[in-house]
Amino acid sequence: MSEQFRMYDIIDKKKRGEALNREEIAYFIRGYVSGEIPDYQASALLMAICFMGMTENETFYLTEEMVNSGKVMDLSAVNGLKLDKHSTGGVGDKTSLVLGPMIAAVNLKMPKASGRGLGHTGGTLDKLESIPGFRVTLSEQEFIDQVNSINLAIVGQSAELAPADKKLYALRDATCTVDSIPLIASSIMSKKLADGSDIQLLDVKFGQGAFMKTIQDARHLAHTMISIGRKAGKVTCAELTSMDQPLGYEIGNINEVIEAVDTLRGKGPKDLLDLCLHSGSILLKLANAAPSLEVAERRLRQAIDSGDAYRSFVSMVRNQGGDVRYIEDTSLFPTARYSYEVKSIADGYVAEMNTYDLGIQAMRLGAGRQTATDTIDHTAGISLKKKVGDRVRRDEVLAVLHSERSGIADIGREVLADFTIRGEKPEVPPLIAETIYN
Amino acid sequence: MSEQFRMYDIIDKKKRGEALNREEIAYFIRGYVSGEIPDYQASALLMAICFMGMTENETFYLTEEMVNSGKVMDLSAVNGLKLDKHSTGGVGDKTSLVLGPMIAAVNLKMPKASGRGLGHTGGTLDKLESIPGFRVTLSEQEFIDQVNSINLAIVGQSAELAPADKKLYALRDATCTVDSIPLIASSIMSKKLADGSDIQLLDVKFGQGAFMKTIQDARHLAHTMISIGRKAGKVTCAELTSMDQPLGYEIGNINEVIEAVDTLRGKGPKDLLDLCLHSGSILLKLANAAPSLEVAERRLRQAIDSGDAYRSFVSMVRNQGGDVRYIEDTSLFPTARYSYEVKSIADGYVAEMNTYDLGIQAMRLGAGRQTATDTIDHTAGISLKKKVGDRVRRDEVLAVLHSERSGIADIGREVLADFTIRGEKPEVPPLIAETIYN
Repeated sequence: MSEQFRMYDIIDKKKRGEALNREEIAYFIRGYVSGEIPDYQASALLMAICFMGMTENETFYLTEEMVNSGKVMDLSAVNGLKLDKHSTGGVGDKTSLVLGPMIAAVNLKMPKASGRGLGHTGGTLDKLESIPGFRVTLSEQEFIDQVNSINLAIVGQSAELAPADKKLYALRDATCTVDSIPLIASSIMSKKLADGSDIQLLDVKFGQGAFMKTIQDARHLAHTMISIGRKAGKVTCAELTSMDQPLGYEIGNINEVIEAVDTLRGKGPKDLLDLCLHSGSILLKLANAAPSLEVAERRLRQAIDSGDAYRSFVSMVRNQGGDVRYIEDTSLFPTARYSYEVKSIADGYVAEMNTYDLGIQAMRLGAGRQTATDTIDHTAGISLKKKVGDRVRRDEVLAVLHSERSGIADIGREVLADFTIRGEKPEVPPLIAETIYN
Repeated sequence: MSEQFRMYDIIDKKKRGEALNREEIAYFIRGYVSGEIPDYQASALLMAICFMGMTENETFYLTEEMVNSGKVMDLSAVNGLKLDKHSTGGVGDKTSLVLGPMIAAVNLKMPKASGRGLGHTGGTLDKLESIPGFRVTLSEQEFIDQVNSINLAIVGQSAELAPADKKLYALRDATCTVDSIPLIASSIMSKKLADGSDIQLLDVKFGQGAFMKTIQDARHLAHTMISIGRKAGKVTCAELTSMDQPLGYEIGNINEVIEAVDTLRGKGPKDLLDLCLHSGSILLKLANAAPSLEVAERRLRQAIDSGDAYRSFVSMVRNQGGDVRYIEDTSLFPTARYSYEVKSIADGYVAEMNTYDLGIQAMRLGAGRQTATDTIDHTAGISLKKKVGDRVRRDEVLAVLHSERSGIADIGREVLADFTIRGEKPEVPPLIAETIYN
């Protein structure tokens, strides 16, 4: 193939705003993975893509070539439809810990591959690893057997899926070429098309704490990913949800697990439960497991109320080696050595929260990673006491910081600055803005 | 400095269309030359520059940093003003071989550093090396001594000038980031500011056979280079000249030297002589060596008519080790083994010439280089018999190809296709379109 194409010409074509064909994209991805095409040519192409974009077809070809660069999971041994939900990343987003058990409790299957946190966002795997003994690495057979027996398993994504995406993503991360919608869409979907699921719900976050700052960009990303899913013959649907404030009250790892368990026990925050019910209803509807969204939601609510969803979570923890005593009594979890109360310096209402920065401050407390090789302190994090729209008085606690590090008053000042207090009660924008079907 | 800046942030800033400051550009160039900044980040920045451009200040800072990356020639030991003319590259452009001796003949100094040909363009050094024995490498002392004694020397550019430009240019060439006016301007001017000349005339070619396809782009490039020269305190001026047809009738190496010698003997083609007179007049005027362009031109014409310019050329050849018998009797030059006549297949007028392709076909005959490491056959080339505006009859010879390679009929067909013959006599656009003063 290297005789047919020159990388230079491919860069030139994209720079002139023309669409690359499937053969050109295949040449690029295969050559880049094999090392024939050097990083400096790849980064020039990526930057040209940032400026000139890609058509739906180009984005699909790119995704498919990244899928073809690695292994495609064969989950055909799982009986029944395989449901999946993927979030584009947020602050306090512990949805998978709640939604997975809810889906399992209504007897649908969720064989889920998750990721780790980076920067201001947390990751499901890190949260699960807060539970002593929990294994996020299962063999393929263990994974399939567990899903067949209890409907649910959450593991780390295989490094063999879409290796082209991993190599490209590392380059994008170093060359300021991450924020291109076709590149983001193909990166996410390359792993989603390779993971063996049948039905995919994409939770596309938007707002101050999300990668997509505007709902317009989130909608564009959602449509692009749905287009890829459709071309690949996979049922794909998206919901656009706000990240203008954190989801729930807890940001961290242990504290997020506890909040998820509380939610499964019917004592969780309303926004988190609402999002899980919404997401779950869509998945049930797409799987033809309920005649309507209303019926679906009623069944999911019933799964919480009956304790079935909670028991599904306990089963998963037990099956994956976790110590279920911590779930049965979450007060057993260790707590951080230091805590620090962030208090309001004014009377009024919480008008805005700097969600992105709250994620960054949680990371600084030890709950997250600045670089992929950093280690995490599972006890660290932020417990919010007030959210947007809440009345607050001077000296009332806005948030509590948890850390193994002493001297976190500087972080406390940053967190205080993340709360905007105003005299008038603000409008609280809806959490779930739109649902976009296939 | 690496603690103050991150290359990622510099790429991001340029991608957002902001101007980089001097410190950021210095960090980039120094880090890139030292190898701290990898090629893949440099190429991402270059591509962002292609899309977002650079301000005059940014372009100047980039040029100065490239100058500072290497040696700056000290020609202070040359008595008198040091004149230079630089062409952006064309087909059949042997101006330096004629203009240098003309300048020397009126007792002004031209210590000239030239380049080699690549792609469709020829290079002055390659042409001079057609002369048996001619040395394009002189020691600094030999160079200065020769200019002081006979006013003229033409040598290869020192590899120590602007090494940052060399490294960047190689990267641009591989990543389709050559065609950015600020990058082109800073690349040319980094070498011109480092070469020790006092007065710089830039011959910016435009049209089908030039790098700048339109006069607008050529004008933009000229203004950008003049702005750099002005900020650096160097007298800089530009002429915009047409490359819609080759300059003179000869494209190659030996044949171009012969055409230059003919011109110095007063028997050359009018377009070549006109351009040399125009360029020379501007240089004389800028050097305050003539009260007006008209007086300057008269003196230069006289230098041809008197044989002084021709004798200056012979002196240079002798001083640089060349065998002057070839200049005194150009019939001594070897000729190519094969020649091939390209004949018109129609009656009419030459309306257009594909100048770029004529350069490419001359290269294919052996006169040029596809890559920098190719070797040149000095006997190869194309002798044009007709130019734009000429009447031509069916079967009349349009051009003669010279090559050491047999079977050049395929190249003959390409050259034939490079001539557009039409029934009506065309307007011949002027060779010299504009002069842009400092």
